[in-house]
Amino acid sequence: MPVETIKWERGAVKLIDQTLLPHKVKFITCRDVRTLWRAIRTLQVRGAPAIGIAGGLGVVLGIKDSRAGTSRKLIQEVKKTAGYLASSRPTAVNLFWALERMEKVAEDNSKRPPYEIKKILLKEALRIIDHDKKSCRAMARRGAGLIRSGDTVLTHCNAGGLATADYGTALGVLFEAKKQGKKIKVYADETRPLLQGARLTAWELMHEGIDTTVICDNMAASVMASGKIDKIFVGADRIALNGDAANKIGTYSLAVLAKYHRIPFYMVAPVSSFDLRLKSGKNIPIEERPADEVRTVLGKQVTPKKAKVYNPAFDVTPGELVTAFVTERGIFRPPFARSLRKLT
Amino acid sequence: MPVETIKWERGAVKLIDQTLLPHKVKFITCRDVRTLWRAIRTLQVRGAPAIGIAGGLGVVLGIKDSRAGTSRKLIQEVKKTAGYLASSRPTAVNLFWALERMEKVAEDNSKRPPYEIKKILLKEALRIIDHDKKSCRAMARRGAGLIRSGDTVLTHCNAGGLATADYGTALGVLFEAKKQGKKIKVYADETRPLLQGARLTAWELMHEGIDTTVICDNMAASVMASGKIDKIFVGADRIALNGDAANKIGTYSLAVLAKYHRIPFYMVAPVSSFDLRLKSGKNIPIEERPADEVRTVLGKQVTPKKAKVYNPAFDVTPGELVTAFVTERGIFRPPFARSLRKLT
Repeated sequence: MPVETIKWERGAVKLIDQTLLPHKVKFITCRDVRTLWRAIRTLQVRGAPAIGIAGGLGVVLGIKDSRAGTSRKLIQEVKKTAGYLASSRPTAVNLFWALERMEKVAEDNSKRPPYEIKKILLKEALRIIDHDKKSCRAMARRGAGLIRSGDTVLTHCNAGGLATADYGTALGVLFEAKKQGKKIKVYADETRPLLQGARLTAWELMHEGIDTTVICDNMAASVMASGKIDKIFVGADRIALNGDAANKIGTYSLAVLAKYHRIPFYMVAPVSSFDLRLKSGKNIPIEERPADEVRTVLGKQVTPKKAKVYNPAFDVTPGELVTAFVTERGIFRPPFARSLRKLT
Repeated sequence: MPVETIKWERGAVKLIDQTLLPHKVKFITCRDVRTLWRAIRTLQVRGAPAIGIAGGLGVVLGIKDSRAGTSRKLIQEVKKTAGYLASSRPTAVNLFWALERMEKVAEDNSKRPPYEIKKILLKEALRIIDHDKKSCRAMARRGAGLIRSGDTVLTHCNAGGLATADYGTALGVLFEAKKQGKKIKVYADETRPLLQGARLTAWELMHEGIDTTVICDNMAASVMASGKIDKIFVGADRIALNGDAANKIGTYSLAVLAKYHRIPFYMVAPVSSFDLRLKSGKNIPIEERPADEVRTVLGKQVTPKKAKVYNPAFDVTPGELVTAFVTERGIFRPPFARSLRKLT
């Protein structure tokens, strides 16, 4: 992993500003919840596991200076902070998973005095980070078993160290395969509108010395047709019981193309990205982001100024197009409605 | 058609610089072949029919000041100029079609004196423009019959007035449908790397008052899955006898997605875009363009500076994914190896 994406440091959340990468490596310090909320909203920190971590730390930020005299009052503040953070981004379930976990820990300790609950919450937030690190390594080990030396892998968006507290999800698999001495090549979709593939994934892979080729999203089909791609590995932001999975816009496109070209399509995600209360992907809320993300590229206007645009940040890949899910608890194959039940 | 894309004016080729659109409407004047060659190469003029026209006018530019004392010498210069212009871009066949037409006219008139051959060549180049204008209108009329009021159409790259001397190919169909009073909506892929969809297609469609929504290329699948798209209309740069068709990179991706979503996929192109000497698309040369087109967007660096990229300008859509070709001589349906024979 090239950098530490997000951490707790001297009473504040320190994170690398991903909107400036790869040209500028700059860390920002969030000393209050509002700043952190904005960091999540504007994608200074992004990636499903990383925003889960941000959520956990955000709760700590929100209550650390609380003067609540009773535990009941403090727990109310925890819930208010969690509710506020939950409004930052709607699709990745890890955020809600982390916030619920923080709320539960507070409630489970409601008999303790406020200063103790504060300590317990910080410990829990740090445990989420630790849990994510271990999950990354476990997913990487399991996923690397699917890679043969000589494989060329296609990936989309950024499912790397920057999306997590450690190794990444889909990219973790590739880092681990490389570490095991397997020879791999990677094609990285640039991933419009915000170019996380071109900016972040290429940066991470090149940093690890992996042979990386950046393509525009619309070139993926042509590269597949030419026989260059052996496997596709991507992350996931929210997975329903039947295997329907929300991930960065364009993932669904790749999944359809993979099926047409008979290329295995793997999604790598920690258990915290599974929302098994949802029977299908139909009810996953899809975030629509500002029109100017499409109208401009890094501040440069590309469309006519008043052009109408559509800017969904995610799409849903139906489970029937997914070859398998790689998680820290194993590799899950269809039929998902049965296999994924083990995770509930 | 919003502007006159390319024309002959006072002994020079005048064309709109498409690399500056939509923010700046600037015409450039090419007084010599080298300037015109560069205009084709750098996409100041682009679109298969338009570069055919540029080729024809380019031959005139190349010989208009010739001091060749004999017809034989002049015809040699015509061939040299044509050979030079042919090296500007390799994929669209219209360029070669126009250059061959110019060479043939020169040879057919080899008995005439040089000054007469010069006049005949100019007349022929203007005839190519006129021919393109008529073809556009004929394609538009035939294609509009495929559109119902209420349809939402997806298009890719720019197959509009800017790609031709008149109405456009795929967009011509939409302009004509609108003129006939049909209500239509259009989704336009932005078309990375050079964003002809975002910059040119959106500009043309908005100018004609057509309800247009720009999307990133990787959003097309999601828009199709949502049921929003009734039909897809795109252009084509070179079509082989079996219906395999080269067009802007990303077209093949759309064709696969269209098949998966059972959406009709139409390609609109004049007969001059058909290269029926080719039995299949396998032998269509695919232009690879400079890496910096992918590494940057309108001059802004998006990847790490030394990132390796792959930048094919075209892909080949297999004939089996094409619902029909709309040409000025009719609508051609599968099996293409039989139906397209009528065009030979």
